[in-house]
Amino acid sequence: MTHTATSHARVAIVGSTGYGGVELIRLLAAHPQATVTSVVSSSSAGTLFSEGFPHLTEIVTDELDAVDPELIRSKADVVFLATPHGVSSKLAPQFLDAGLKVIDLSGDFRLKQPETYREWYKKDAPEQAYLDRAVFGMCELFGDEVAGADFVSNPGCFPTATTLGLYPAVQAGWIDPDTIIIDSKTGVSGSGRGLNLSAHFSEVNENLKAYKVGQHQHTPEIEMVLERAAGRPVTTTFTTHLVPMTRGIMSTMYATLTDKSRSSAEFAELYRQFYEGRRFVRVRPTGVYPATKEVYGSNYCDIGMNVDPRTGRITIISVIDNLVKGAAGQAIQNLNLMMGWDETLGLLFTPVYP
Amino acid sequence: MTHTATSHARVAIVGSTGYGGVELIRLLAAHPQATVTSVVSSSSAGTLFSEGFPHLTEIVTDELDAVDPELIRSKADVVFLATPHGVSSKLAPQFLDAGLKVIDLSGDFRLKQPETYREWYKKDAPEQAYLDRAVFGMCELFGDEVAGADFVSNPGCFPTATTLGLYPAVQAGWIDPDTIIIDSKTGVSGSGRGLNLSAHFSEVNENLKAYKVGQHQHTPEIEMVLERAAGRPVTTTFTTHLVPMTRGIMSTMYATLTDKSRSSAEFAELYRQFYEGRRFVRVRPTGVYPATKEVYGSNYCDIGMNVDPRTGRITIISVIDNLVKGAAGQAIQNLNLMMGWDETLGLLFTPVYP
Amino acid sequence: MTHTATSHARVAIVGSTGYGGVELIRLLAAHPQATVTSVVSSSSAGTLFSEGFPHLTEIVTDELDAVDPELIRSKADVVFLATPHGVSSKLAPQFLDAGLKVIDLSGDFRLKQPETYREWYKKDAPEQAYLDRAVFGMCELFGDEVAGADFVSNPGCFPTATTLGLYPAVQAGWIDPDTIIIDSKTGVSGSGRGLNLSAHFSEVNENLKAYKVGQHQHTPEIEMVLERAAGRPVTTTFTTHLVPMTRGIMSTMYATLTDKSRSSAEFAELYRQFYEGRRFVRVRPTGVYPATKEVYGSNYCDIGMNVDPRTGRITIISVIDNLVKGAAGQAIQNLNLMMGWDETLGLLFTPVYP
Amino acid sequence: MTHTATSHARVAIVGSTGYGGVELIRLLAAHPQATVTSVVSSSSAGTLFSEGFPHLTEIVTDELDAVDPELIRSKADVVFLATPHGVSSKLAPQFLDAGLKVIDLSGDFRLKQPETYREWYKKDAPEQAYLDRAVFGMCELFGDEVAGADFVSNPGCFPTATTLGLYPAVQAGWIDPDTIIIDSKTGVSGSGRGLNLSAHFSEVNENLKAYKVGQHQHTPEIEMVLERAAGRPVTTTFTTHLVPMTRGIMSTMYATLTDKSRSSAEFAELYRQFYEGRRFVRVRPTGVYPATKEVYGSNYCDIGMNVDPRTGRITIISVIDNLVKGAAGQAIQNLNLMMGWDETLGLLFTPVYP
Repeated sequence: MTHTATSHARVAIVGSTGYGGVELIRLLAAHPQATVTSVVSSSSAGTLFSEGFPHLTEIVTDELDAVDPELIRSKADVVFLATPHGVSSKLAPQFLDAGLKVIDLSGDFRLKQPETYREWYKKDAPEQAYLDRAVFGMCELFGDEVAGADFVSNPGCFPTATTLGLYPAVQAGWIDPDTIIIDSKTGVSGSGRGLNLSAHFSEVNENLKAYKVGQHQHTPEIEMVLERAAGRPVTTTFTTHLVPMTRGIMSTMYATLTDKSRSSAEFAELYRQFYEGRRFVRVRPTGVYPATKEVYGSNYCDIGMNVDPRTGRITIISVIDNLVKGAAGQAIQNLNLMMGWDETLGLLFTPVYP
Repeated sequence: MTHTATSHARVAIVGSTGYGGVELIRLLAAHPQATVTSVVSSSSAGTLFSEGFPHLTEIVTDELDAVDPELIRSKADVVFLATPHGVSSKLAPQFLDAGLKVIDLSGDFRLKQPETYREWYKKDAPEQAYLDRAVFGMCELFGDEVAGADFVSNPGCFPTATTLGLYPAVQAGWIDPDTIIIDSKTGVSGSGRGLNLSAHFSEVNENLKAYKVGQHQHTPEIEMVLERAAGRPVTTTFTTHLVPMTRGIMSTMYATLTDKSRSSAEFAELYRQFYEGRRFVRVRPTGVYPATKEVYGSNYCDIGMNVDPRTGRITIISVIDNLVKGAAGQAIQNLNLMMGWDETLGLLFTPVYP
Repeated sequence: MTHTATSHARVAIVGSTGYGGVELIRLLAAHPQATVTSVVSSSSAGTLFSEGFPHLTEIVTDELDAVDPELIRSKADVVFLATPHGVSSKLAPQFLDAGLKVIDLSGDFRLKQPETYREWYKKDAPEQAYLDRAVFGMCELFGDEVAGADFVSNPGCFPTATTLGLYPAVQAGWIDPDTIIIDSKTGVSGSGRGLNLSAHFSEVNENLKAYKVGQHQHTPEIEMVLERAAGRPVTTTFTTHLVPMTRGIMSTMYATLTDKSRSSAEFAELYRQFYEGRRFVRVRPTGVYPATKEVYGSNYCDIGMNVDPRTGRITIISVIDNLVKGAAGQAIQNLNLMMGWDETLGLLFTPVYP
Repeated sequence: MTHTATSHARVAIVGSTGYGGVELIRLLAAHPQATVTSVVSSSSAGTLFSEGFPHLTEIVTDELDAVDPELIRSKADVVFLATPHGVSSKLAPQFLDAGLKVIDLSGDFRLKQPETYREWYKKDAPEQAYLDRAVFGMCELFGDEVAGADFVSNPGCFPTATTLGLYPAVQAGWIDPDTIIIDSKTGVSGSGRGLNLSAHFSEVNENLKAYKVGQHQHTPEIEMVLERAAGRPVTTTFTTHLVPMTRGIMSTMYATLTDKSRSSAEFAELYRQFYEGRRFVRVRPTGVYPATKEVYGSNYCDIGMNVDPRTGRITIISVIDNLVKGAAGQAIQNLNLMMGWDETLGLLFTPVYP
């Protein structure tokens, strides 16, 4: 972090009426060095923001701005794009060209190879120049690359929980990357505020279902990170499930040990050393596993693990709040890193319990 | 607020392992002028606090202190008693006598007449001298009496939602106090962390039930407040329901208008004027009614109302987070008032949505 | 029940892809004297029913029929219209004219005065001749009128829970009809399977909200029934709330006693006598109140009550499963009555607990 | 099924006040050839059953009997033991010796080797003679052994969902047994009606947690079944998670194909043939995966699967209602088989949806 820090940032949020955008507003309200100066919506420009979000009554009193890079340039230094994939790919270049710093929360700029993007997202990839320019902002793993960047691609929710849980063991060569199986579970807010039968209360409540089995678009993003850890290609089995709760992601991860004599305690120690000094990753003691509520509303990623000597496999459990560490919180952490600030600035929320 | 303000308070929390106590810890972690210096538990003294509450890992690193007024006096200036009724009545005098300021979250010191306490709580009342000394800390109604006090009795969750919703109309004489009917609904955390079949997930989930019909111990507390508004005795019908959610209270209140020509808009305006300058009460515009999620995790009390010309009655809807404005949040608001600080200090959390 | 009973009925369900229609299918699968011979959908005709409803795999193997009265006449004797209001008003005459018996689950034929329908439903009422022909099928109150009818209008969910809870006391003159206040709470399935932000899981879960305050279209239906009990016009205050659960309705009802010396036990005895011989209404003993889960998945309406001598008011609590006694179950009960069968035929399900 | 069928059975339920016992009562109420003649409880004998279970008001009008084999012998032919492990081991011999047929829902008689039981259950195993006599009643796999038996050990909930999902592929040699990883998720009712912080609503709601990682007592039961399929020892990784819902189990299972050219469709066809004629197992078409709500309240086990050519692994998803197919439903299916009746008798409930 040798970059010159400016002391304050004016922030615009595009796509402010989705769950990611609204969560950015909640978190930034408590940030000591960033101020939201423009909330932007393509569909509702000109209306009062709090009308659609009465919980923000007397907290956000602004009208929504239109998607106008020049206007926004006059009001802000940094833009968060909390827009769907396929939209960010079009907006990010405009805002960058207008001289704004951009943090994109969509999946558009995470994968560096256009054909991989096309295969998993079923859409054309953004222009290569912008793909190359976007720094992948997985803070605890590649935070050094973010410092001073003007364009950050914020990681996906599943990849964040998953790769923070796997990276140290893969990098150390303690697990065989070819044996990794990832069983992920998410709350419903992860699929956004759009109307869909699969988010209808009566369909989701008292129900548990798997979805996109073998086809989730976060698969190549997870493999991209693990390949950096392994130094070679990695292919994983990744399955996602929808759990009847609003917030929270858990990844339960399985892999075979390369040296079957290693213990749970050795692994826990490896992880503690790897994440030393990083406030947002908390490693549980042996025999204790984190639950999603233990990070609810906060930017923490909590990790627990168990080596089973019967099978020679490790089970690793990693939890985050999908809207915070999995989206808005990590995006602000990236803002902090871009600006040369302490990465925890404005983010040390205590989890909401119960 | 003409009292001399000291700039900082050291705080002890007794009963820190209940939901009220844990919520005090969450909220005080963000308070700029108060520091928790002792977490106290009669049952778990000597153990690490975060062991029982893993969401506080690396946030609260203290061991639990025993209930020892002298020890606590050496570490703290103010004590929050987040203890059950029947326990606070014994502890408060000890801490007061040791020279500490006390804020009691139980029901022990709210009712000023011992026989009323005995009738509704089925327990002996505390000593009259301490009953008299305790200021009833309903901040938006009687906050002036709290400034400078050394002993505050924090209001109950139902009375807070209910009387903030009724007081302006009763005081103005716009509704007939003899016609008031209060239908309240609460999340499950209101009954605490104790084990009970009525808090068992499989019994509560997908279920709605009424409880303590005609017998809830908050009834005389509500009537005590309304009598101050009406200037005469008031008897109300008060029914409580358990809703399958963790946090949140809604009171739906019914009363007959004294002048049936008054409109919803006139009532809303009366309420807005009454609560002018009080940040934590938000009055909805005509035709809009607050939902509990709109105050989730925050100290707000949101109120909406509708006059029905067909019946000559008003329906008033008031919502709070039972653990914040209904317990720990209002207790800290009382701390702020006692210390001569701005009442919003450390409490301007944005509600957690969704 | 002096009508000649035929021993079997072939049944068609129109609007089978909504929650009411699907529940009819579940319940009729266990009916010993009725067989579903046609499932009908305007939007999905020709597709396999179980594709959209995988829980019916290998249970319902039919394709959906189009809305064609002649076709349906060839396959069925009775039609259930589980269609929205505004649609039933158009379909019912067609099916009646084709010689089918019709049971309509919508609100279209409940109110007998077109202007009242127009005022509350904001739509034009059906033709008066059909309005007059439709028998209002509140089984425990007006079941005698249903026997032998060929067109039954099935009551609304809120009116069923509410008027079963109030009728005996109003008819006996034990409560003052002018003082009735009804505070109702419903699970989310009551608003159907359509996509709407107010049924989005992340918006409803951990949330409680009031809706249509003073404007719910079931108000005049409730008053219509109470007027039959009172023998004079009745105006009520009726408020509805959305509870984070899938099934269940509770009405909490308040009224002033005409003779304040009457006890809870006397009221309970009045109700037990009124409902003697009716299997689906269960009156709780004094001091016990029903919860919605106690009728989950069943056709019961459970009622409890408490007289408060302090206020001279009674609180009555009535619960049903909104999709069974509040819709499909009562519709089948009406089928039984129309056919001259025992009203409990095929409906004696034990509630699903927990 | 060459055994002589008697036409009717009188049934006693011991441990009737737990969730398994109450579910037996619900299901048997609809059974055409079995009648509950005694509900038995060690703790509440002499009290009215419906007092503790108001949903059974006017449905079960009996008092609870004491645990008295002679008394029960005089009233019943068959005893269901819905008692905890450690209790069944003591009761089953008594009832068998008294000449009753016994179906035990606990884990006490499933494992045939006492030392395995001791290792995983941390208790002494039952006497070997009774262990040997107990037939393991996994109906779709070993139902032939149940016909005519007088003592059946009913399988565990996780083993039922899991082994029905794995058996055909292991038996066919299409997956490598050494690579099996089982990620299971259960609703809260699986842990029973006992009071425990891990079943407290405020702790479970909006929360997801793993438990007994590497230590669940159902592990050896699963391996015992898979070994019969494989014809050799099998060791599996088995992890369980608690989901905020009342009912439902999903097992997501992973294994490496022995022949990587086999497709999802070939596997689905293998399963369809394996389960041909067994009504309670439904195999989903390729690309469709079952959700727990699709079997809610019913005796079905629904299975879907996906072969991922990228990894050479299959993902198999299997769901049941833990209280029906995972406990009371399968126990009644075993009763049917013991008595020589059709295994579906009284069990063809349509799942409750939504």
